[in-house]
Amino acid sequence: MNKVILLKKRPVGRPVLEDFEFSSAAVPDPMTGHVLLKTRYVSVDPYLRGRMNDSKSYVPSFEIGKPIQSGIIAEVIDSRHPEFRKGDFVSGNLEWKEYQISDGKGLMKVDEKASPLSSYLGVLGMTGMTAYLGLTEIGMPKAGETLVVSGAAGAVGSVVGQTGKIMGCKVTGITGTDEKAELLRSKFKFDHTINYKTSHDLKEAVQKACPDGVDIYFDNVGGEISDAVLSNINKHARLPVCGAISQYNDTKTQVGPRLQPILLTKSATMRGFIVSDFSAKFPEAIKQLAAWLKEGKLTYAETIVYGFENLPQAFIDLFDGKNKGKMIVEI
Amino acid sequence: MNKVILLKKRPVGRPVLEDFEFSSAAVPDPMTGHVLLKTRYVSVDPYLRGRMNDSKSYVPSFEIGKPIQSGIIAEVIDSRHPEFRKGDFVSGNLEWKEYQISDGKGLMKVDEKASPLSSYLGVLGMTGMTAYLGLTEIGMPKAGETLVVSGAAGAVGSVVGQTGKIMGCKVTGITGTDEKAELLRSKFKFDHTINYKTSHDLKEAVQKACPDGVDIYFDNVGGEISDAVLSNINKHARLPVCGAISQYNDTKTQVGPRLQPILLTKSATMRGFIVSDFSAKFPEAIKQLAAWLKEGKLTYAETIVYGFENLPQAFIDLFDGKNKGKMIVEI
Repeated sequence: MNKVILLKKRPVGRPVLEDFEFSSAAVPDPMTGHVLLKTRYVSVDPYLRGRMNDSKSYVPSFEIGKPIQSGIIAEVIDSRHPEFRKGDFVSGNLEWKEYQISDGKGLMKVDEKASPLSSYLGVLGMTGMTAYLGLTEIGMPKAGETLVVSGAAGAVGSVVGQTGKIMGCKVTGITGTDEKAELLRSKFKFDHTINYKTSHDLKEAVQKACPDGVDIYFDNVGGEISDAVLSNINKHARLPVCGAISQYNDTKTQVGPRLQPILLTKSATMRGFIVSDFSAKFPEAIKQLAAWLKEGKLTYAETIVYGFENLPQAFIDLFDGKNKGKMIVEI
Repeated sequence: MNKVILLKKRPVGRPVLEDFEFSSAAVPDPMTGHVLLKTRYVSVDPYLRGRMNDSKSYVPSFEIGKPIQSGIIAEVIDSRHPEFRKGDFVSGNLEWKEYQISDGKGLMKVDEKASPLSSYLGVLGMTGMTAYLGLTEIGMPKAGETLVVSGAAGAVGSVVGQTGKIMGCKVTGITGTDEKAELLRSKFKFDHTINYKTSHDLKEAVQKACPDGVDIYFDNVGGEISDAVLSNINKHARLPVCGAISQYNDTKTQVGPRLQPILLTKSATMRGFIVSDFSAKFPEAIKQLAAWLKEGKLTYAETIVYGFENLPQAFIDLFDGKNKGKMIVEI
């Protein structure tokens, strides 16, 4: 038996379990040039919400009645492909299936001995590269500057903050619980944290945490949190926009203060990106992140949920901030 | 008699004549190392509105009871400065006075024989450099791309559009009268124009004028015009924010659709700037603009108002779009 999770209908607003459908299929046999993969770890990420809409985005929409896809670590359990052997572990953008066939394209072997398998979905995977490349390529941090990160305790945010610290920045993380704030300070060595849910004046809270103003704002959330940070930016601030989780479930366009006047008076740069914009720098990013991890300069958090059947709920929980660090489902 | 215009009070919303005060002073004598200047042409610019507020902006606020300053072409009528002679013409950021003393700092000699004096306030001055450097440094135009300019018939906009054409772009200008639209097409060779006042669906109008989407949006106005353009941007669009004239007179922060989601999905860059961000490139910009002007590739429009006493009204008229090209007051 091979369980599969399909997109049943496009979520309206916040996704619910009814948007997903469990199905089953036979476990296939690999043809020549193919491998049979067994799913081990599945990455659930906020950006998948965008792919569930029908609208054009930076990646194609999921199709109704077809399996969801995301970053997956799988084990090769049968191979008729010259480059893969039974027992290899691979990372790839794969389907939410317990077993699947691949022709090997887009698969990358990962080394269980070098780092735990799940880390290849997080700090040594797409989220780590997103954090590192968004910060270095757009944020261009310089020692002594002030960096603010929203969604700071998430998979990307926690790597952004640590990278900022390594590069000599003063780092403030914005998050939604005191427990996560504590984690940011103790485990990830952020200088300051702000709990946006308990701050009654977020603009003032940012000002207090960042007395020299904000030079870089790495934005994972958008919305009013970003408004508060933007009112504190310095001349020539850089604002990488990595995500807008506060708006992913909106059914209509949110309004907020217009940004052009502040970008204008501060000669500031706001730039949206997706990690593939920097694909030429992936090897460099992974090399640097792996080195920092080995040297103990970088660490990471994971929230691991067990069981294939819990995949949709784990995804939904992202929007309630139930994860600390990378949200991963172990099969 | 030496007439002087002072800021009487800070405008609330749209500036009115009562915000300005006419005063008079004796015509001073220059001390050693100084020149006596007679004002000949005064530049009035939308950005001066920002300096009339008390809030911090990219340039210091004007002080109540003190003269307004802007770009001025003046004649040296008496010199005790070794570098300037009677009869020289100079350009500088000077006070709204018929006569004034200068120690020569910040003054640049201009050549009446090479180009009309007023052009040194426009196409060969700050506005020309703003257009050229904002477009080339942030917009990074490539041949075949689509460029949209708002405030297209203004001093900056008309140079942006022409520079875009010289660089091989398809250029659409957004303006507020049919007469200006005609000017953009006939004199400045824009490919398409949109009259935002008579378009009932601006988003659709942009889509129609730019069937391949918008690669560069040079924004002089902000507000709903910019919303309409932004909904048509392409992947990796560049959005130099040069001005926000639609918002300069606002007494409270305008709201509009949040921009982060579109910047994110399009991997687009929005960057505010002031021309001095690129001061290292001023000589290159002036050289290029002067060459194009000489070759007949570039032209310009001026709206010239006569008389020192009409300075405040000429400034106010900018916000009604009464100028075509550069608004200049000839004394």
